Amino acid sequence: MSLHNDNWFTEANEQTGIAFSLRLTKKLHEEQSPYQLITIYDTKEFGKLMALDGLYMVTDRDNFIYHEMMSHTALFAHPNPRTVVIIGGGDCGTLREVLKHPTVEHAIQIEIDERVTRVSEQYFPVLCESNHDPRAQLLFEDGIKWMAAAADQSCDVIIIDSTDPIGPAEGLFNEKFYRECRRVLATDGILIQQSESPLLHLPLLKSIHTAMRKAGFTATRTLHFPQCIYPSGWWSATLASHEDVTQFRVNSTPSFDTRYYNAQIHTASFALPTFVTETLRDCENTPQLSE
Amino acid sequence: MSLHNDNWFTEANEQTGIAFSLRLTKKLHEEQSPYQLITIYDTKEFGKLMALDGLYMVTDRDNFIYHEMMSHTALFAHPNPRTVVIIGGGDCGTLREVLKHPTVEHAIQIEIDERVTRVSEQYFPVLCESNHDPRAQLLFEDGIKWMAAAADQSCDVIIIDSTDPIGPAEGLFNEKFYRECRRVLATDGILIQQSESPLLHLPLLKSIHTAMRKAGFTATRTLHFPQCIYPSGWWSATLASHEDVTQFRVNSTPSFDTRYYNAQIHTASFALPTFVTETLRDCENTPQLSE
Repeated sequence: MSLHNDNWFTEANEQTGIAFSLRLTKKLHEEQSPYQLITIYDTKEFGKLMALDGLYMVTDRDNFIYHEMMSHTALFAHPNPRTVVIIGGGDCGTLREVLKHPTVEHAIQIEIDERVTRVSEQYFPVLCESNHDPRAQLLFEDGIKWMAAAADQSCDVIIIDSTDPIGPAEGLFNEKFYRECRRVLATDGILIQQSESPLLHLPLLKSIHTAMRKAGFTATRTLHFPQCIYPSGWWSATLASHEDVTQFRVNSTPSFDTRYYNAQIHTASFALPTFVTETLRDCENTPQLSE
Repeated sequence: MSLHNDNWFTEANEQTGIAFSLRLTKKLHEEQSPYQLITIYDTKEFGKLMALDGLYMVTDRDNFIYHEMMSHTALFAHPNPRTVVIIGGGDCGTLREVLKHPTVEHAIQIEIDERVTRVSEQYFPVLCESNHDPRAQLLFEDGIKWMAAAADQSCDVIIIDSTDPIGPAEGLFNEKFYRECRRVLATDGILIQQSESPLLHLPLLKSIHTAMRKAGFTATRTLHFPQCIYPSGWWSATLASHEDVTQFRVNSTPSFDTRYYNAQIHTASFALPTFVTETLRDCENTPQLSE
């Protein structure tokens, strides 16, 4: 359910019983792409806003938290990330952060909806400022099919920067897709997947761990961070690898500016609340509370 | 500004450009106390909700995060907390957490509005379950006056569990009040103050540090945690003491159940995002990013 009026953009969800609204100044753009309704608003206090099918995707003001945590936690945990694959991520904010890493030689973004990227280029030029970096490759196709066709052990980090696990992104949250990711990752590779709200979607979070484990990943861990515009204002990402959990520890620190991420935040973001630890205990490498 | 309709309770703020809503099932209670409008709703997914003057105060579902972080971080950082003073905290959820600590001999809650506590006793019986603990003392008077009259060095921990720094709570956010708190705290005492949203209220957060420093506290540090119902879904608390910052480190771990707080969360909650660190650099004992 989505409520609109002239003054506020509201994302309301009957299942979670939550609605969140931003004060608007005007609607800048709206189009129905082959996949979804893309709307751009100018807001009073959050800069520009992109909504897909009436759901918050990105604002100028707070996207830095999500984009930095979805990219730098995986890339700084990896000893030498050279080839990075982004599934989804059509606003290009994750790609921009990935390309800040001097080790990265090739960053491939596979977004199913080209219109999301084209509209972002127009309304979020800062997020798209690295789209023409010679190391960047923007593909507009189905990420599931792309992954199924990719060569074994051909990339170092896979970032699943997807919408919610309903609609186009549903196939990105299951064992079959994670198995392909595992095959495509190098032996020291790291997968990171946005994994929704710890407060609202804990059963989903557990099912993501379970599916990653069934797909053959031997280490999985969840981190968390604030994200104002997403339901509950609190969001998570879940990492998976072939190796021991220690490889998610921070390996090096940024040689570039960040606004949310730093080495202390990297480590801290893996400290989980007790109610989350208790739910994930059987399926995660969470340090026990007694340690 | 506060919007109401039959289906949702909405707190909307023109200045921040944000509105947050919970789906209601019914209004259970409303009264105008001498200080504020107290409203209790039953919500669809968050249990009972208390609003004061149309602003979210507490829900059954997510209050544990705020109450645990406002109490345990200060009490577990203190070597031996025996006397604890809570300014505000009328829903009694902080008092309940404080009394879980076996070292605590005396916990005094000074809430200006007795009706908040009486209504909480009726609608939030779990939060009020320790109100009759023989160590608990509930006073209904002005916290500023109480503090001015309190004996020197007579308590170990002061928790300022207040509403926003407008209206009745305005006098709890300034140098004069902090100076009284410093006088009333023992030499190894710790003050903790709720300090609003890191995303929305950064200038206030800085002014709290500055006022605490001017009041003579030599160590101040901010921690942060998610809080779904408060503006931006992300909240903070700021600690102050006479001693070196190291005393905010976790000293011992809970002998009782917690749902959000644990020793790892304690440490992690002090890891600040880069944009916060940069703002507070001059007035906080934040470890430098290069460490």
